[in-house]
Amino acid sequence: MIVFLTDWGNSHYVGICKGVIRQISDAEIIDLTHEISSFNVREAMYILSRSFYHFPKNTVFLAVVDYGVGSSRKAIAAKTRNYYFVGPDNGLFTLVFEEEPPLEIRELNNKKFHYLNSNTFHGRDIFAPAAAHISNGDFKKLGDLLPNYATMPYLKPKKNKNLITGEVAYIDKFGNIETNIPFEWFAEIETLKIRRKRKFFEIPIVDFYSEIETGQLIAHNDSTGYLEIAVNQGNAANILNLDSGDPLELIL
Amino acid sequence: MIVFLTDWGNSHYVGICKGVIRQISDAEIIDLTHEISSFNVREAMYILSRSFYHFPKNTVFLAVVDYGVGSSRKAIAAKTRNYYFVGPDNGLFTLVFEEEPPLEIRELNNKKFHYLNSNTFHGRDIFAPAAAHISNGDFKKLGDLLPNYATMPYLKPKKNKNLITGEVAYIDKFGNIETNIPFEWFAEIETLKIRRKRKFFEIPIVDFYSEIETGQLIAHNDSTGYLEIAVNQGNAANILNLDSGDPLELIL
Amino acid sequence: MIVFLTDWGNSHYVGICKGVIRQISDAEIIDLTHEISSFNVREAMYILSRSFYHFPKNTVFLAVVDYGVGSSRKAIAAKTRNYYFVGPDNGLFTLVFEEEPPLEIRELNNKKFHYLNSNTFHGRDIFAPAAAHISNGDFKKLGDLLPNYATMPYLKPKKNKNLITGEVAYIDKFGNIETNIPFEWFAEIETLKIRRKRKFFEIPIVDFYSEIETGQLIAHNDSTGYLEIAVNQGNAANILNLDSGDPLELIL
Repeated sequence: MIVFLTDWGNSHYVGICKGVIRQISDAEIIDLTHEISSFNVREAMYILSRSFYHFPKNTVFLAVVDYGVGSSRKAIAAKTRNYYFVGPDNGLFTLVFEEEPPLEIRELNNKKFHYLNSNTFHGRDIFAPAAAHISNGDFKKLGDLLPNYATMPYLKPKKNKNLITGEVAYIDKFGNIETNIPFEWFAEIETLKIRRKRKFFEIPIVDFYSEIETGQLIAHNDSTGYLEIAVNQGNAANILNLDSGDPLELIL
Repeated sequence: MIVFLTDWGNSHYVGICKGVIRQISDAEIIDLTHEISSFNVREAMYILSRSFYHFPKNTVFLAVVDYGVGSSRKAIAAKTRNYYFVGPDNGLFTLVFEEEPPLEIRELNNKKFHYLNSNTFHGRDIFAPAAAHISNGDFKKLGDLLPNYATMPYLKPKKNKNLITGEVAYIDKFGNIETNIPFEWFAEIETLKIRRKRKFFEIPIVDFYSEIETGQLIAHNDSTGYLEIAVNQGNAANILNLDSGDPLELIL
Repeated sequence: MIVFLTDWGNSHYVGICKGVIRQISDAEIIDLTHEISSFNVREAMYILSRSFYHFPKNTVFLAVVDYGVGSSRKAIAAKTRNYYFVGPDNGLFTLVFEEEPPLEIRELNNKKFHYLNSNTFHGRDIFAPAAAHISNGDFKKLGDLLPNYATMPYLKPKKNKNLITGEVAYIDKFGNIETNIPFEWFAEIETLKIRRKRKFFEIPIVDFYSEIETGQLIAHNDSTGYLEIAVNQGNAANILNLDSGDPLELIL
């Protein structure tokens, strides 16, 4: 099974890559999502790391969020204990590889396994065919062994007395702020404070949206175990002026 | 075959549920749509009721539009003469069950058939696995028998001399007003009148868009046999200030 | 394999057509895209012509972008050397058929192979079932032979000394201007000029976005071999006031 993640929207670029895969392999293709914000490798890093473990063993993840076409970033495929990952070596796999360390990384430099030879559409020409060839059992033929992979710096969540720090993982399409801070740290807590725009916002921690008024900031457990800050029928990211990757300081 | 309907957009939440299904079952998964307006159970009710009968016998419909996570609404699966339906017991199946009465309803309370144990993502943890287990033949094991199901009140269409009443089924993404009134009631009629914002709008009934000017309100037969009110290259819902569930009084 | 292209968005209309196909055939269904601008046959013509050759032999393309329901345009299916194409005879296949001339065209007028009998939803009632029947080997039964097909006029790209002409193929969702002019004609060129709104815009030709400032117009090689005009983090179509089908005069 090939699971496909990009920032291309549901465009014909996605469809074309599926055509290329079908020229090589009969593996089932499932879309994880193509709604990653354009070029937002950090968002893709978080979403992939919160999704991959729900798929069966031996799934091949084809993840293409890539501002670096034309740069010197490598194209890679990695085998981990349970899965395969294919994509640009730009830090996208940082969090996934913390949980599933790569056992073997290949640079996708064997041109026999490329499709066309464009400079600009590596998804079609390098990554999609690589995923298809892996599903055919040809992982080792894709290119040379690499000793390591690129990582993206991020602020690990930390708890220090009444101060919790971390970062904004991503902003969802409703303006909800997804963080990288485990919700369990707030299990017994009723409110948190955050300083933005020179003032303090006091944010109640609730179980369900239904408990609060329209327009009010709240914090709650997102469905994957992390703290989310939202506004009932509003845009929390705009109110707090926060974006993907911004550091967070939450005061209990 | 599992047919999947949500209000999540084409997000990774959809992809994750497919991963969970694949851990349990090889059933084909087809997206009906994930573009239901957020939390709009009424829209989902209408769209499901206008779609399900185009799918082959024994299709399992996985329909998750749910403002009630955390409320006391039950999670259910139902077997009808031709199909299975899985989702929250919040009225979403009201119209479907009028046409395909449930022969057997199960509450999804057998925790052996749940995936994870979150409070917040019942799509992933309860509904998607239930659909997968049904496709494996395990409908009866999903939980206890239920004697009935929740219904959503709605205004049935009525014709009384020159007055036709009903309701707005939903507003589509172009602002077209989809009603629950059979178009055949307007077969010989040339115009209808509707009173909104203290004035009467006179709306011609046409066969095709091409007959009318840009900006003009028209009424016509949508593709499923119901009256639709639209504006050529405009937003009819804004002009008439109508939303999903609003009552309609149309004067012939 | 059936590859599906429409301007319907990821709506339940797409899902319903898949249900209809499944009543007839087990062929795999892959979405090329459903994000064609509404009623933009020209855009669909270009996107299909730049996508089809990436799919395996014998793929059936189901392409429904159709402002002509209710007009006299025919419904057709065509067999070419490598593929099948199904859709309205409104010019959508103009470019595809230049590259893959139709060997046999059938009008979809055999009502035994229609699904329902609506006036308004030919995708569901005529085109989707035709694609499914073709995948079952019933191409020849779909209707009468047609001697020819409708074409859409378009400006072929031309090079004349320092003047290159062509047209806007389509505008993508970011406002990038996709042209029908081969990028190779600009291989050694550093800038081009275009006259719009009574002034000349001088546009550098670059390899990668990373070379330019935010807000600056640039021209580059799109991933399929054609010239694209874009603005780094801006909307080129708005700046140059260009739309799908507009003629282009580029001065070297």
